[in-house]
Amino acid sequence: MTTAHGDVQTPAFMPVGTQGAVKAVTHRDLESLGAEILLSNTYHLYLRPGADLIARRGGLHAFMGWSRPILTDSGGYQVFSLAARRTIDEDGARFRSHLDGSEHLLTPENVADIQAKLGSDVAMVFDECVAHPAEADAVRKSMERTLRWARRARERFVALQSGQVRDVIVTNPGQAQFGIVQGGVYPDLREESARGTVALGFEAYAIGGLSVGEPNETMYNVVGQTTPYLPDDRPRYLMGAGTPEDLVEAVARGVDLFDCVLPTRNARNGQLFTSEGVLNIKNARYAEDERPPDPACGCYTCRTYSRAYLRHLFHAKEMGASTLNTLHNLHFYLDTLSRIRDAIAFGRFEHFRLAFRQDLSRRLLDS
Amino acid sequence: MTTAHGDVQTPAFMPVGTQGAVKAVTHRDLESLGAEILLSNTYHLYLRPGADLIARRGGLHAFMGWSRPILTDSGGYQVFSLAARRTIDEDGARFRSHLDGSEHLLTPENVADIQAKLGSDVAMVFDECVAHPAEADAVRKSMERTLRWARRARERFVALQSGQVRDVIVTNPGQAQFGIVQGGVYPDLREESARGTVALGFEAYAIGGLSVGEPNETMYNVVGQTTPYLPDDRPRYLMGAGTPEDLVEAVARGVDLFDCVLPTRNARNGQLFTSEGVLNIKNARYAEDERPPDPACGCYTCRTYSRAYLRHLFHAKEMGASTLNTLHNLHFYLDTLSRIRDAIAFGRFEHFRLAFRQDLSRRLLDS
Repeated sequence: MTTAHGDVQTPAFMPVGTQGAVKAVTHRDLESLGAEILLSNTYHLYLRPGADLIARRGGLHAFMGWSRPILTDSGGYQVFSLAARRTIDEDGARFRSHLDGSEHLLTPENVADIQAKLGSDVAMVFDECVAHPAEADAVRKSMERTLRWARRARERFVALQSGQVRDVIVTNPGQAQFGIVQGGVYPDLREESARGTVALGFEAYAIGGLSVGEPNETMYNVVGQTTPYLPDDRPRYLMGAGTPEDLVEAVARGVDLFDCVLPTRNARNGQLFTSEGVLNIKNARYAEDERPPDPACGCYTCRTYSRAYLRHLFHAKEMGASTLNTLHNLHFYLDTLSRIRDAIAFGRFEHFRLAFRQDLSRRLLDS
Repeated sequence: MTTAHGDVQTPAFMPVGTQGAVKAVTHRDLESLGAEILLSNTYHLYLRPGADLIARRGGLHAFMGWSRPILTDSGGYQVFSLAARRTIDEDGARFRSHLDGSEHLLTPENVADIQAKLGSDVAMVFDECVAHPAEADAVRKSMERTLRWARRARERFVALQSGQVRDVIVTNPGQAQFGIVQGGVYPDLREESARGTVALGFEAYAIGGLSVGEPNETMYNVVGQTTPYLPDDRPRYLMGAGTPEDLVEAVARGVDLFDCVLPTRNARNGQLFTSEGVLNIKNARYAEDERPPDPACGCYTCRTYSRAYLRHLFHAKEMGASTLNTLHNLHFYLDTLSRIRDAIAFGRFEHFRLAFRQDLSRRLLDS
């Protein structure tokens, strides 16, 4: 994937930097882990420190001091999951900030504006999220609204990028905009959404509304039923997924791009992804365990620290616990994607997938 | 200073790793900042994860994964400042843990045992701390008790190191033990304490009971009145000090070793030490300030991040704020010591000291 701030080898995993920072690690950590692109959250940055402030500082890359690609989500999911007193109508979403209770309105147009100010390399359209499970009727209505919003978002994006919007600072003239396919777990709605979204002509496309509580197999099926309707010369992005197994299975179904808080959030809760399954570092059984979290892993944490020490740091509430666990989990995710890319290049992906499922997933379920 | 885990260039500053970790940074950060020795807290490690556990893991170096020198304090100050329901008699200090309320007794002998298990390169004797201000009479009583405790601690240390104590695992056969001079702000008591402590024959000596609220000039005077009684072929350690100015002034009076939580704790509170004075990163004036914290500084934080971004991270309660601020403050302290060593080597220390006072201290007081 080519962006205004450089290329991204796909399939790729994007560490999540919600507020313009990946929690508990620094940019140089991310660079040395091989992260080629970060995700940051439009909703959070809009509320604090504000898109205008970031635009005045030259955009999010300059503000953060991060020179590699950035994708910003649309804020739709955060409005759905975080904001208070949310009301959604055809215009957009009205809500109160989870920080200070202040009133806000996000629309397809002003979300495009905010992202133009942020200057991310990939801007996501503003979509409507529905709870899972939901009846086909409600999902259809929401999917159709998301389509209408996508048209408005695209028109605004084109106007912004062609310099027709005078009062918005466009900090990244090479920004791309991705459409989002909705439609819940209903194949016919997914097909309709995909066809409609592709017809609007975005730079690339994402699959939204999954990894929200549906069974794994349902997610894999929906992904497999949706990707055929998305152009195969453009990256396909599965939003918010998932476990290591989810990534492998989605790649098998044609997905190129992922983001998920799982490796970073679980790290802060003491849960480590390893080649032998999930390890809860807080468990008493590790109190005197001299082994690294994953003896097969080459990350800084595994090269330097024992389970016993990491358990001590966790129980002592040392910030270093979060940092070292996050370094490991991000390494595990980024390394898994790297091995997937190698397997694809050598025509051995199906072999890799089978071995991965057998080795890891079963133990993941056991632990 | 030569230790069982390598040499330390003096004068040196020891970052404080209370629970076996310097808060918010990793060992590789400390190594690349040039930290040659860490301080860790006997009191905290004794309570959690426990000295026996650490001894079974091969000592604190192996447990932490840190191969450079470590000094452990005696726990005296923590018993004084943290523990609940503390009662002190000639035997030692009885107290309840600040973690779980459990009852403990620390004595000169068992503190030496705990440190033998930890295997630090330098073990401090268990001393009694008095509040400041205190009358000469109370300070004399406490100083005399500290001297009696020092004799007991030394006897135990010699027995431990010569293999006469069967039930304690000595994890570092090259451990050194430092005595501690007390005596408050009273020159005659300091002299008496110094002479008595030196007579016991420790590997080196520390000045305790300062940096506890007395005026700067008082501290400088006491240091200047005490160091002449300490052997000049052994490092002299001023415990718990201090500001950058304190370090320069103490070096001028013959001090070689420092530890202080100021650079790390203040970093977590958003206070940065710079060549132009103290900078409170949370202030609104930095919201759009593109400059690094200290334009004259070469640390990772200053090379990469703006005040505006660091202020955002602080207000967004991102852990990265603590990490980046700590990296900067430790760099400032370690770099100041490095410049002091260079100045001494080139016979220009008095010139350095004068320039430092004029440049920095005045602005520190102004800010």
